[in-house]
Amino acid sequence: MDYAAAGGSLGGSIRVVDLCLGKHAANCGLLIHSLAMDYLGRQARLREDLSRARCDALLVTHLPNIHYLCGFTGSSGALLLGAGGSVFFTDSRYTQQAKAQVKARKIVITKKAPAIAAAEWISSQPRRNRTTKAGVLGIEPPYVSVLSRKNLAAALSKNVRLREAPPLVEQARMVKDADEIAAIGSAVELGASLFGCALATIRSGVPEVEVAAEMEYAARKKNAEGMSFETIVASGPRAALPHGRASPAAIQAGGFVVCDFGVILHGYCSDRTRTVYVGAATAEARRIYDAVLASQLEAIAAVRPGIKVEQVDRAARKTLQKKGLGKYFTHSTGHGVGLEIHEAPRVAKGQQEILQPGMVITIEPGVYLSGQWGVRIEDMVVVTEQGCEVLSPTQKDFIEVG
Amino acid sequence: MDYAAAGGSLGGSIRVVDLCLGKHAANCGLLIHSLAMDYLGRQARLREDLSRARCDALLVTHLPNIHYLCGFTGSSGALLLGAGGSVFFTDSRYTQQAKAQVKARKIVITKKAPAIAAAEWISSQPRRNRTTKAGVLGIEPPYVSVLSRKNLAAALSKNVRLREAPPLVEQARMVKDADEIAAIGSAVELGASLFGCALATIRSGVPEVEVAAEMEYAARKKNAEGMSFETIVASGPRAALPHGRASPAAIQAGGFVVCDFGVILHGYCSDRTRTVYVGAATAEARRIYDAVLASQLEAIAAVRPGIKVEQVDRAARKTLQKKGLGKYFTHSTGHGVGLEIHEAPRVAKGQQEILQPGMVITIEPGVYLSGQWGVRIEDMVVVTEQGCEVLSPTQKDFIEVG
Repeated sequence: MDYAAAGGSLGGSIRVVDLCLGKHAANCGLLIHSLAMDYLGRQARLREDLSRARCDALLVTHLPNIHYLCGFTGSSGALLLGAGGSVFFTDSRYTQQAKAQVKARKIVITKKAPAIAAAEWISSQPRRNRTTKAGVLGIEPPYVSVLSRKNLAAALSKNVRLREAPPLVEQARMVKDADEIAAIGSAVELGASLFGCALATIRSGVPEVEVAAEMEYAARKKNAEGMSFETIVASGPRAALPHGRASPAAIQAGGFVVCDFGVILHGYCSDRTRTVYVGAATAEARRIYDAVLASQLEAIAAVRPGIKVEQVDRAARKTLQKKGLGKYFTHSTGHGVGLEIHEAPRVAKGQQEILQPGMVITIEPGVYLSGQWGVRIEDMVVVTEQGCEVLSPTQKDFIEVG
Repeated sequence: MDYAAAGGSLGGSIRVVDLCLGKHAANCGLLIHSLAMDYLGRQARLREDLSRARCDALLVTHLPNIHYLCGFTGSSGALLLGAGGSVFFTDSRYTQQAKAQVKARKIVITKKAPAIAAAEWISSQPRRNRTTKAGVLGIEPPYVSVLSRKNLAAALSKNVRLREAPPLVEQARMVKDADEIAAIGSAVELGASLFGCALATIRSGVPEVEVAAEMEYAARKKNAEGMSFETIVASGPRAALPHGRASPAAIQAGGFVVCDFGVILHGYCSDRTRTVYVGAATAEARRIYDAVLASQLEAIAAVRPGIKVEQVDRAARKTLQKKGLGKYFTHSTGHGVGLEIHEAPRVAKGQQEILQPGMVITIEPGVYLSGQWGVRIEDMVVVTEQGCEVLSPTQKDFIEVG
């Protein structure tokens, strides 16, 4: 299969690079596919933030942050980023992959935990080496465990001390660059196409898990690396479980089916929810659906740069409150999406983050009546200079199936 | 679909319980499927360990540990376990699910982070309440972040202090009880059946990801909750990537394909690797395959209670060293499997853990020549009184495909 072509069909602006290794590059078709993104630019910008955070170097251990900064997609690594450049640490399982993917001044293959190897390495560097003089080594407090911190402290020499750094990488990741928006767009486009599989499969008597199976199969055939979370196919009273992952329960006529699903493509996540009705809908079912849809559209209309994210949440909630359904909307309106399925900003009550162009968030109000029914409608939007753009918009009119 | 029957077909000894909610239980077919395991017995045994760990209560935040202790399978929760019982904290998305699944004295639905709610709750309890007098609250140091620890400390009253508890739950989980061995057996049986899909799909020209798609589709159709890790289908020179997840690269004749795959069924993981050759194999390819197989069989033969796990690693390594392939075996021999795909004990050089009946580990030696080929063969075994039993054994003779 022509991989570049496949990528192209999902959004022509994505640059897909086949990274092959050394002498085998020409004919082995090896190996490790990565998007060509501006990793070195991201590192350079982060280095500028380091001194403001009063750190000489930053030890990045959260894998999505590592991916964002240097391109590595494996499951074991640590990135040390100082004034003079970056050094990446991983284990021997990833020797080839690191060489192919990682943008860093140096790659170290270690038998130790990568973060420990990084701590020992920085301790061993002469002070004149500006990359690594590192009197103060920043760590990521949400991602370093109490145990790891203790082990890190023990591995450092006396002249290096740890500081809990602010969320510099998360702040950077919150506003997506053009490469990322294109990658997310491709993921959303692929994800959106799966709803057709759901519609073709949902009918009375079919197990929920079979609907999920068809969607996930289609995703894989279209080169998704996987699903971005456990596919939710929640039917009838199970639709009232906001996180009702697909179960072997058979779909019954006379109720809603909530389908909440997403893929990972080139490392980026998609997230979307559609709700359909099985059988002939009651007027009440239509009323509820229309209220949720109105709420979602109001929230999307509210999205624009310069406002606080809580205002988007308020817009969604207000519409449901007017229709007497406010108390059944039991979760927040949305969340950021990118390399992780849930990332900053949270779109919820009290959240003071200011929306900026390039942020990508979900808008997903829902209403749930315990033990009876649930409805949720979700799209991803990217904040633009003027407002926002829905990614891969499709119609959201009420659908009766079967 | 009859879920209990489906469970039965995968291992009759599993007790599957449909947990329905209150008045809807009779006819809604709601909801949340759980295995009936001895959660309260596990909590009782853990409580006995608490005083030895010098803790009055333990705050369990690692989700697999929560699942093990009280049955909850959602993504947000904290379990507080003290002398008098246990209290479970989660958010409103999981109200119904928690009521259906959780075995605890009390369930608290909170708008805060569950661990913070737990810290505030324990602080508010009168000292005479033995469950929660908790002068010393144990936390799990590998799973509590530096940030969470700080937030927890701020949420606690002055009369409660934190202690880094030893890995009590991980120790308990390392030795599986009969219910768990049955559950793991069912997962392995389902997982093993997927190799047939791989064999039916692998041929020259087929993208690796298509092989993964077929396996994952079959897994879902058989009610797997998902895959236990990203499916590895690594062909030709990509087979030399020990973690070469299925890519869009087309399989070529004249090389190995390593398939490493596992499912999650009722929360428990399976893990298995088979390697096949595409086309007519060379004598060298057969020699390498046979060496890896001999290594795997020697390691399996070494497994018995009372020995250190490093002895199993040594057995695998020695066999390859004799054939001059030792240096190409670049990772450890295996790892524990259960609610997590990687858990204690590690089967690696220097590991001093003593094997005990009921431990479930993988045996997965491999040899890799960078840029050229790779071979790995893996099974899961359960340690018995006499030695070990391979779960769902199937033949491992050399296979040529296409």
